[in-house]
Amino acid sequence: MVLALTGKLVVGVDFGTLSGRAVVVRVEDGAELGSAVFEYPHGVLEQVLPHTGDPLPPDWALQVPSDYVDVLKNAVPAALKAAGASAQDVIGIGTDFTACTMIPVTAGGTPLCDLPEFQAEPHAYVKLWKHHAAQGQADRITDLAAARREKWLPRYGGLISSEWEFAKGLQILEEAPEVYATMWRFVEAADWIVWQLTGNYVRNACTAGYKGIHQDGEYPSQDYLRELNPGFENFVLDKLAHPLGQLGDAAGGLSEQAAEWTGLRPGIAVSVGNVDAHVTAPAAQAVEPGQMVAIMGTSTCHVMNGAELREVPGMCGVVDGGIAPGLWGYEAGQSGVGDIFGWFVDHGVPPEYHATARDRGISVHELLSELAAQQEPGEHGLLALDWHSGNRSVLVDHELSGLIVGQTLATRAEDTYRALLEATAFGTRMIIDTFIDAGVPVTEFVVAGGLIRNPLLMQIYADVIDMPLSVIGSENGPALGSAIHAAVAAGAYPDIRAAAKAMGSVERDVYRPIPANVAAYEEIFTDYLTLHDYFGRGVNQVMRRLKSRRRRAKGLR
Amino acid sequence: MVLALTGKLVVGVDFGTLSGRAVVVRVEDGAELGSAVFEYPHGVLEQVLPHTGDPLPPDWALQVPSDYVDVLKNAVPAALKAAGASAQDVIGIGTDFTACTMIPVTAGGTPLCDLPEFQAEPHAYVKLWKHHAAQGQADRITDLAAARREKWLPRYGGLISSEWEFAKGLQILEEAPEVYATMWRFVEAADWIVWQLTGNYVRNACTAGYKGIHQDGEYPSQDYLRELNPGFENFVLDKLAHPLGQLGDAAGGLSEQAAEWTGLRPGIAVSVGNVDAHVTAPAAQAVEPGQMVAIMGTSTCHVMNGAELREVPGMCGVVDGGIAPGLWGYEAGQSGVGDIFGWFVDHGVPPEYHATARDRGISVHELLSELAAQQEPGEHGLLALDWHSGNRSVLVDHELSGLIVGQTLATRAEDTYRALLEATAFGTRMIIDTFIDAGVPVTEFVVAGGLIRNPLLMQIYADVIDMPLSVIGSENGPALGSAIHAAVAAGAYPDIRAAAKAMGSVERDVYRPIPANVAAYEEIFTDYLTLHDYFGRGVNQVMRRLKSRRRRAKGLR
Repeated sequence: MVLALTGKLVVGVDFGTLSGRAVVVRVEDGAELGSAVFEYPHGVLEQVLPHTGDPLPPDWALQVPSDYVDVLKNAVPAALKAAGASAQDVIGIGTDFTACTMIPVTAGGTPLCDLPEFQAEPHAYVKLWKHHAAQGQADRITDLAAARREKWLPRYGGLISSEWEFAKGLQILEEAPEVYATMWRFVEAADWIVWQLTGNYVRNACTAGYKGIHQDGEYPSQDYLRELNPGFENFVLDKLAHPLGQLGDAAGGLSEQAAEWTGLRPGIAVSVGNVDAHVTAPAAQAVEPGQMVAIMGTSTCHVMNGAELREVPGMCGVVDGGIAPGLWGYEAGQSGVGDIFGWFVDHGVPPEYHATARDRGISVHELLSELAAQQEPGEHGLLALDWHSGNRSVLVDHELSGLIVGQTLATRAEDTYRALLEATAFGTRMIIDTFIDAGVPVTEFVVAGGLIRNPLLMQIYADVIDMPLSVIGSENGPALGSAIHAAVAAGAYPDIRAAAKAMGSVERDVYRPIPANVAAYEEIFTDYLTLHDYFGRGVNQVMRRLKSRRRRAKGLR
Repeated sequence: MVLALTGKLVVGVDFGTLSGRAVVVRVEDGAELGSAVFEYPHGVLEQVLPHTGDPLPPDWALQVPSDYVDVLKNAVPAALKAAGASAQDVIGIGTDFTACTMIPVTAGGTPLCDLPEFQAEPHAYVKLWKHHAAQGQADRITDLAAARREKWLPRYGGLISSEWEFAKGLQILEEAPEVYATMWRFVEAADWIVWQLTGNYVRNACTAGYKGIHQDGEYPSQDYLRELNPGFENFVLDKLAHPLGQLGDAAGGLSEQAAEWTGLRPGIAVSVGNVDAHVTAPAAQAVEPGQMVAIMGTSTCHVMNGAELREVPGMCGVVDGGIAPGLWGYEAGQSGVGDIFGWFVDHGVPPEYHATARDRGISVHELLSELAAQQEPGEHGLLALDWHSGNRSVLVDHELSGLIVGQTLATRAEDTYRALLEATAFGTRMIIDTFIDAGVPVTEFVVAGGLIRNPLLMQIYADVIDMPLSVIGSENGPALGSAIHAAVAAGAYPDIRAAAKAMGSVERDVYRPIPANVAAYEEIFTDYLTLHDYFGRGVNQVMRRLKSRRRRAKGLR
């Protein structure tokens, strides 16, 4: 323990898909004293661009970077106020971000969309993690790497996602060369926000590894990039490469400007940027090998440390020190989870359910969960594939889509809702099974994120994966994790593992598998697996054809 | 022309799934002078029995026979009144019914469910056509017939439906032997209603052939029935066999009792019972070989005369004189069509669509059709299988179920609605292609039934089948067809073909295929076909397993 901790505070700020959340945390024990949320004024741009109102093609998802600065200006002071805390006691601030969320910037860090000449150019905006319009580029990146047997490919389960830095960068080069030429660097939002806080651009080791294909000290070669597209030859050199910072390190001190925005003291420690999922592991005291943390919200990220390097097919990546220095950090994920439930509630549930929920003062989610909880596994007669937002693991294919089979005239909204919950549980089971089969043991399953508030969903997960569920003790897991990193960066703890032990929290075995349900789901999972492989592994490529016809019918590509 | 027709009238009564409709028709030219509808007080029993409130298992569909008599008492007098007609001018009455809808009765024609001791026994009630709980029996009936190479099996496309007389009868024997023992005959509702009108039980040649496996003057043998179940040996002799009446013949004169119910004169001609689909062919002037009539409502029936006997895989049946004496009557069908659209509107459309439709004074169907009509084929990116109510042709399997693939977070209600419309069009195309491949040409496609009022649906059908659509001229096709049969039974015309020519009506080429849409659907149909065969022809029997798990989870079977 490097500093006298008593009374010292840190601030963690979690930048999510729709809002940013700041939490004020006590350094000695991780107690959360106050928090505040600020919703992004522009939200997610999926239909039209601001200013011009120009329509966006399908699968696009953009953001406006000034929204992130607004979080610093609003949520941080509000959290301090809610905590009744004095800025004098705050010794550090840490942040985490969605990833891979990318911003093309000038040498001064100005996002290109803030330049008047690029306001009408979609490619000048932030490409949010769930921008899935670069699947064509991703396919070529993977195919060429496979053909050339690039040694980094197996580190990513053999597939490079359309969500990541290279696919998004190549899409800019090929669709908006002037944006590509103008951008000084293509920067992770996780690092851009730290740049705003400190005035320094430090590239974090986590996203550089998982999203930027940085492995064993190297990026993909110029030779490979040239073969992909001659104009892409210097993508790494010109647009990506930058000195890296390790997780838990300080990126610098808080700048005067940022001190003014946040109400904090200039000069306090700002930790190196990080990713929402990865910071949650220490918040849930889950940084030992085999402890898989699932951060379940709009989408689900699975992160886990491993003692050894293994190649797991279809995982998102394995990065040395990707979660905590000294261990191999594994990541996998499901691109749509809470998103799918939300879509169904908004677009597939008839009026009487909405009226009943309103009358009873509960949400439609709660009503459907209550009705669905009365069913036995298999009773609704449905089976769904959870690919409405594509498949991140283990298929890594965003041209896939959702499917539901078994509908009859007796099918009701609660049936479909339960089938969708189950489908995401089957998706998680696929990931766990794949890790185990690849020789990476999963010994504990720890859940975090907003969906932990749905007990039916939790029980279904316990039954489908046949493991008890540990639940994070904090409602603000990522922000607490960021605060933990801030404490390490400020020197309060020697490393992330020590800080996690003191400041993180978890409750074990909150949901235990029910044997009869485990047996029923074991059978249904066999059918899920058959459909998964039939539609997902190329036997019937109808999902790809449907998406391609959709683009053609809309006059795109 | 046997009688002086001027001023003479006939009444046609169409008994549908939810209501009965009577129409008063002028004999000389088929003009419809007035009509009236009476809804069945008990509707369709799918959840619980009346009197007891006992729950019914999934896939059951029962009715209460007194509802049918109530139609005679209410709709016929109301139609006469609406027509401003005098009973003095009415020379005959004809009826048509859903099929295969079966009633277990005493020797006096009393339905067993009207006996106090059987009020709580589901098997004593009318088994409506869409009672699909005898699939197990149907499978055995088909399998044994195939194993024994029964010569009648190819006349039914190689598969006997769970909807028909033998499966429904065997289910009663095996699940309610006391009902089986008590019933004097197992009677088609089409014949029971004629029995109520005349006092005579005459079994019509149409349902005897299509639903009762009566072929070349014979039923399935005692030997075959014994092998199916020893107790079933005398099913034909004891429960089914009865003198047949040909279509267009008179079954007798109107009884005093029925004259009192209907307000018609005793003694006028009552035509032999018939089926809603089959009577529609003459109403649409479509009784020549190659003219396929699709009666599109809750479900779709396809009927067509052929000059020669051919074996068409998966058709419902081919019967000598099944539609009109002297030709081979072919029948095929889709068990769910309008039902599926209705289910979706009731159970899958969010509140704002209902509110908009209400505000605009249109139905949700109209609103969704309007929105869906703005799309190009393929634009929604979806593909559905139309088996929510099972598949009647060409798979003849009610253990199949609905499927939709291609869902994304951008999928909206109008997308799904259009995909469901298209799915039923693909289902019709399967039927047409199968007929043509079997050497039975389809030269004209004539549509009738309630769904002809949806122009989007009609255009999709024209595009998917790549044929112009002829549309029946009457809004009361089956009732008009029944009236045509009444006119023949009364001796006003020498036969059905002559009466159809004088009294039926059709408009040709109302919807013409749009070449670009034809090309787009040709491509999508290829994908439909792949899924159709994968899920429908046993490659992946997941639909059967889902239904079986559903029954098990509900504690059934």
